[in-house]
Amino acid sequence: MFEGIVDMSMENKKLVEAITSMDEDFAQWYTDIVKKAELIDYSQVRGCMVIRPYGYAIWENMQKVLDGMFKETGHENVYMPMFIPESLLQKEKDHVEGFAPEVAWVTHGGSEKLAERMCVRPTSETLFCEHYSHIIQSYRDLPKLYNQWCSVVRWEKTTRPFLRTTEFLWQEGHTAHATFEEAQEETIRMLNIYARFYEEYLAIPVIKGQKTEREKFAGAQSTYTIECLMHDGKALQGATSHNFGDGFARAFNITYLDKDNQLKYVNQTSWGATTRMIGAVIMVHGDNDGLVLPPKIAPIELVIVPIAMQKEGVLDKAYELKEKLSKTFRVKLDDSDKSPGWKFSEYEMKGVPLRLEIGPKDIADNKCVLVRRDTREKVSVSLDNLQDEIAKLLDDIQKNLYNKALKLREEKTFETDNFEDFKNIIEKSPGFIKAHWCGDEKCEEKVKEETGATSRCIPFGESKRDGAKCIVCKKEAKELLYWGKAY
Amino acid sequence: MFEGIVDMSMENKKLVEAITSMDEDFAQWYTDIVKKAELIDYSQVRGCMVIRPYGYAIWENMQKVLDGMFKETGHENVYMPMFIPESLLQKEKDHVEGFAPEVAWVTHGGSEKLAERMCVRPTSETLFCEHYSHIIQSYRDLPKLYNQWCSVVRWEKTTRPFLRTTEFLWQEGHTAHATFEEAQEETIRMLNIYARFYEEYLAIPVIKGQKTEREKFAGAQSTYTIECLMHDGKALQGATSHNFGDGFARAFNITYLDKDNQLKYVNQTSWGATTRMIGAVIMVHGDNDGLVLPPKIAPIELVIVPIAMQKEGVLDKAYELKEKLSKTFRVKLDDSDKSPGWKFSEYEMKGVPLRLEIGPKDIADNKCVLVRRDTREKVSVSLDNLQDEIAKLLDDIQKNLYNKALKLREEKTFETDNFEDFKNIIEKSPGFIKAHWCGDEKCEEKVKEETGATSRCIPFGESKRDGAKCIVCKKEAKELLYWGKAY
Repeated sequence: MFEGIVDMSMENKKLVEAITSMDEDFAQWYTDIVKKAELIDYSQVRGCMVIRPYGYAIWENMQKVLDGMFKETGHENVYMPMFIPESLLQKEKDHVEGFAPEVAWVTHGGSEKLAERMCVRPTSETLFCEHYSHIIQSYRDLPKLYNQWCSVVRWEKTTRPFLRTTEFLWQEGHTAHATFEEAQEETIRMLNIYARFYEEYLAIPVIKGQKTEREKFAGAQSTYTIECLMHDGKALQGATSHNFGDGFARAFNITYLDKDNQLKYVNQTSWGATTRMIGAVIMVHGDNDGLVLPPKIAPIELVIVPIAMQKEGVLDKAYELKEKLSKTFRVKLDDSDKSPGWKFSEYEMKGVPLRLEIGPKDIADNKCVLVRRDTREKVSVSLDNLQDEIAKLLDDIQKNLYNKALKLREEKTFETDNFEDFKNIIEKSPGFIKAHWCGDEKCEEKVKEETGATSRCIPFGESKRDGAKCIVCKKEAKELLYWGKAY
Repeated sequence: MFEGIVDMSMENKKLVEAITSMDEDFAQWYTDIVKKAELIDYSQVRGCMVIRPYGYAIWENMQKVLDGMFKETGHENVYMPMFIPESLLQKEKDHVEGFAPEVAWVTHGGSEKLAERMCVRPTSETLFCEHYSHIIQSYRDLPKLYNQWCSVVRWEKTTRPFLRTTEFLWQEGHTAHATFEEAQEETIRMLNIYARFYEEYLAIPVIKGQKTEREKFAGAQSTYTIECLMHDGKALQGATSHNFGDGFARAFNITYLDKDNQLKYVNQTSWGATTRMIGAVIMVHGDNDGLVLPPKIAPIELVIVPIAMQKEGVLDKAYELKEKLSKTFRVKLDDSDKSPGWKFSEYEMKGVPLRLEIGPKDIADNKCVLVRRDTREKVSVSLDNLQDEIAKLLDDIQKNLYNKALKLREEKTFETDNFEDFKNIIEKSPGFIKAHWCGDEKCEEKVKEETGATSRCIPFGESKRDGAKCIVCKKEAKELLYWGKAY
């Protein structure tokens, strides 16, 4: 197995400009990482970012996996226009109220003023509904299981790369079903797909649950969410899935002739996940040396750093290894004339899961050194069974990241029946707080006003305690809720 | 090999609503196909279309191949904002003149009027330049080889699905190099990639060449194009590649410190291909029964239609074949309760390259029937070596489509030195016309005014004839040009 040389020494670090410590200033630490790991560049457009190759490669890896999961479950991709005429946006009352205040309006085409202004899509329910009203006639046309990868625009007041930007990339699934029950099944199916993606690929544990009335999507009958906890104890909504019932169908007159010869409204869902997932990965796994990427979505799983590469045979061996390993892994060989120390820091900053060092002495011994990004463990391994060792290590890193994140979340999940305690926790050691609630929106509002925390979800699989009281009004509780300050 | 039962009978056609004949009304034939093959739906937004699952699946197949070709040649994907502030668009003079008249302007965010209006990107040169000016400092930073997949908006007066739409999907490559020569190499490299993609994947032969000054891209030093010929004899610009020299670099101040310690401007290129490629495939290969898709980009390569499927064993056998064949090919089994005749017409309309029919008698004989979409040839083949037969047939269809298209183009390519002949050809049997030109923009303009044809390109590898005269002014010719009416 491994020859267990554990080397936690730091000699080769801090050769690139240091980043702010996360304990000192988490927000600055985050900003430093997105810039220095070359994930983004700021643009001249307010709240819009340039996603650079390394950041975009992470997104492409995420897309590939999610898109595969969607297609496996029978979904098809489509593309809708990016513009929504104002009258179309206004068709569903709750929906327009939710989105109209935060859209970008196009008023002119070339030099002509438009007869009706259009917004850039903040989300595409209205466009899908319009299309569904054209193509759905009979029960034979159902279900329709469509998805779209695109960018959307929401005019946000304060923005932060990946977490909240004026424009962001996402996928939005929009489906139409014969019955409410089928729509509900779909809503939960997609929530489970998101949860599996977060846990198996992003190595981020999630709490699955339902949003309260106050927090649900504009126009939805019910909204489901996966909630995850960041390193600083703040919550982040990972993805959402909505059951619309027949609300949109009534507004857009989407009907089908059923087997019983009755004209019925369809029932619809929508579900989405965004580039925000990259922010979640940074804030769950990152450390004071930069990004730490789960191998399954890392653009580079293994970086090869040749040592003393001017010595005869070193670069040849490095190229040979690169070619061999590239058949199985995403490999980069850095043969630039920068120092090994600089390269170590650079790929630590970029969160590459494994580093392979190879120098003259290693070659003489038919060995190389592998260094894990997550634990810094350093092992010397034989070149003869390198593939297996790398596969095992990557698998172990993926699991370790998940377990560390789970442990952190458990440490930062609290439960209380006392509002003063609640306030103390939020202020002094933020995290998830499990607390009971009467079901009244006023109590929910009061928690937000007095603590800044919002209800995250009514969790699946965790019931309220018999006889429990609302944390605010002390009346009988209806639900156990997860609460937290959120991004 | 094949048991050569050729069956050209038409008994099973015209069961779905017929489409307009292409000889009668080519434009209507085209519109019928995009609707009836379920490629698009019209939307409420002027000039914008909904790309339906079958149309989008074609685009995804195109994207996958092209993206692979780009990455193989060292290109990386990025994402730029969709908005361009007016002042940024105005930085390069020719560029803004070319695009400002046809952009959509965003003037309001939510309820606030913007201090500076922004356009939705018609193309992203200015955004890439702005970004390059931030990240390029040294010769070590070059080349930058970036590409972006996105949608862009151009406010077109008349639109047609895929060919000319207000919003369309495309990829835009933007690269920065140390020298003009390197930029020129890149420009031609990408043109060659597009040509290879058209010929090998879309089965469309192309003429490679350079655009005249009049036809080049706004802001480019030189523009290269691949031109192809549609079934109706009109030309279509397949993709373009531009060398900007250092024009944008000067406008955006993109400099690098070279090895010789001199500060120099970078040289840039851009190159793009769009959803218009789907329109090209329709208009080159389609026929009066609908779409005909080249196997390499067909969403479904083979459709299985069970015959007498209520008979015992038929559906079981069909499922078994589907499972087996899906390992190698993109296969659909249509087990709906529609008649085989309806299904035959439906998948002919959708251009599926091969149909597999299997009924009780075939099963008893351990055989099935394969029908080609391109030639209607029908062969009965043993189930024992079905995979090989299908692979061979698909390969043959791909080649046959290319050869047919090449033959058509050759038949519709004319050469003349006489302007009256030129006018006659354009009017009576449109196609490419090869004719010499003096190099004066006025003569080029006159051809357009009097015939409606534009110069398509100065072809690579075909020189002007010694002593040839300009087709318009009869002065000494500088170039041999391809001319044609274009989409």
